[in-house]
Amino acid sequence: MEGLGYLGAGIGAGLAAIGAGLGIGNAAASAAEGTARQPEATSDIRTTMIIAAALIEGVALFGEVICVLLALK
Amino acid sequence: MEGLGYLGAGIGAGLAAIGAGLGIGNAAASAAEGTARQPEATSDIRTTMIIAAALIEGVALFGEVICVLLALK
Amino acid sequence: MEGLGYLGAGIGAGLAAIGAGLGIGNAAASAAEGTARQPEATSDIRTTMIIAAALIEGVALFGEVICVLLALK
Repeated sequence: MEGLGYLGAGIGAGLAAIGAGLGIGNAAASAAEGTARQPEATSDIRTTMIIAAALIEGVALFGEVICVLLALK
Repeated sequence: MEGLGYLGAGIGAGLAAIGAGLGIGNAAASAAEGTARQPEATSDIRTTMIIAAALIEGVALFGEVICVLLALK
Repeated sequence: MEGLGYLGAGIGAGLAAIGAGLGIGNAAASAAEGTARQPEATSDIRTTMIIAAALIEGVALFGEVICVLLALK
């Protein structure tokens, strides 16, 4: 049953991408709406979004690296 | 049971595409609405959306590469 | 059935990324909207968001480390 690790690598890589997509996408959606409502706050809103996106990206890439470990095992 | 790796590659590739699609789609939808509400903020909104889309794309492509590794194993 | 540990590592890594993505993304979305409504409260809103994001990040990274342990077993 060693193929289970490969199955886990594929499913995990996809799930991590879903998490990053939904999370960063939601943050970006609200950032776009906020920018439209207060164009003069663009840089503040963008900085907030990038901080959050970087945190999400960190966990997601960590998860992808784990899946690489599993895939190359 | 070595076929499990191929199963994981297929499922993972699809899940990653779901994540990127929903995330970037949501960001783009709100960017379009924001641009419609404040046409003069178009470039700010577009820059915000591209930053977020690039981050989502990075994780999703990483996941797809893992699935390619599994598929070619 | 020792491959089940690898399967769990991959799925767990993806689920942890989903949790972090949805949680931090939701916090960032509301922070962006709050900043747009009260631009002068930007730093307060951002600090609150970073505290929450750090707490979510802590649990998610703990989960990722557990998955690393499983993957390297």
